[in-house]
Amino acid sequence: MSIEAEAARKSIGAKRSLESAEAILEAAEAVLIENGYSGFSIEAVARRARAGKPTIYRWWPSKTALLLEVYQRQKRDITYPDTGGIEEDLFIFARSLFAQWRDTPAGDIFRSLVAEAQQDPAAAEALAEYSAGRRAHTGKLIERAKARGEVAADVDPSQVADMVSSYAWVHLLTGRLDEDEAMLRRAIRHIVHGIAVRR
Amino acid sequence: MSIEAEAARKSIGAKRSLESAEAILEAAEAVLIENGYSGFSIEAVARRARAGKPTIYRWWPSKTALLLEVYQRQKRDITYPDTGGIEEDLFIFARSLFAQWRDTPAGDIFRSLVAEAQQDPAAAEALAEYSAGRRAHTGKLIERAKARGEVAADVDPSQVADMVSSYAWVHLLTGRLDEDEAMLRRAIRHIVHGIAVRR
Repeated sequence: MSIEAEAARKSIGAKRSLESAEAILEAAEAVLIENGYSGFSIEAVARRARAGKPTIYRWWPSKTALLLEVYQRQKRDITYPDTGGIEEDLFIFARSLFAQWRDTPAGDIFRSLVAEAQQDPAAAEALAEYSAGRRAHTGKLIERAKARGEVAADVDPSQVADMVSSYAWVHLLTGRLDEDEAMLRRAIRHIVHGIAVRR
Repeated sequence: MSIEAEAARKSIGAKRSLESAEAILEAAEAVLIENGYSGFSIEAVARRARAGKPTIYRWWPSKTALLLEVYQRQKRDITYPDTGGIEEDLFIFARSLFAQWRDTPAGDIFRSLVAEAQQDPAAAEALAEYSAGRRAHTGKLIERAKARGEVAADVDPSQVADMVSSYAWVHLLTGRLDEDEAMLRRAIRHIVHGIAVRR
């Protein structure tokens, strides 16, 4: 959930609203499973959660914002490893992202979200916020590697996360999630070690 | 144009069909400018080019295939430099792609094409074929650097092209084409030299 949504939720107070938010998210998940992406709507979620539409909109400014949180909950299995080596950490992370998109409905949901963001400004905003959050989160792997002295001090962690996730996004968007692991490892290795001949 | 479309065109013979193809592409370009992406259709192009729909479909298997060729023609200004240094070559290429997408209608057209490919299998196929062709083309920059001994022999040129263009695609798709040049250069540098501390 976004910081604003979190703040809004807190402002209406404590336990009750946390339960409502959870109920809405569960209803949204059920609607998505039953109706698919194209049949997903705030109306359907409100009906199922027995909540008012204004309550939902108070916490999620758009359908896409709500969908992204449902998507993120489904994607809990993504691995953010801590092997002590940045190449291995990033490879395991990227491999788990490929697998999740390839082997579960999460991939199709995310493709639809990206498509919607190209056509609808509210969706674009929600996707931009979501992906910035993801870059910051994945960036923690690189921050740790900087702290270990493994990665150069002037490297921007979220940019490296951006490079890894962009590679994954475009594989999703062009139907290439079946790329073999050796290729994926090479991509990660290029970012970590570069392609230039060592002199 | 795809190899198959090229072959099909040749099989119906010489000059006349090349002229027709050119006329259709020009008509398609005009329709796109006048009607925008959402108003673009094979029917409209056929009317404008005074061609039959079957003629168009003989060369372009889908609306998206035709749109991608029009898009590619508009994108002629993309620079594939040969400065003698791979970092500079890739940076200039990526910067020109960012600029073209940011400053001309090409960016919105391509966003729409990517969105359509998430919803329509024929569009997905056309985009997959197109992007494979682009990776091979951009890969030539890396092939030259390999020939110069600047890039390691086991590097896959089209994979490096993939990494650079994926970074650009996701910036387009998440509204971040205004990223400053220094950041873009760092992304390219990470691929060329890596992020690891040199020991």
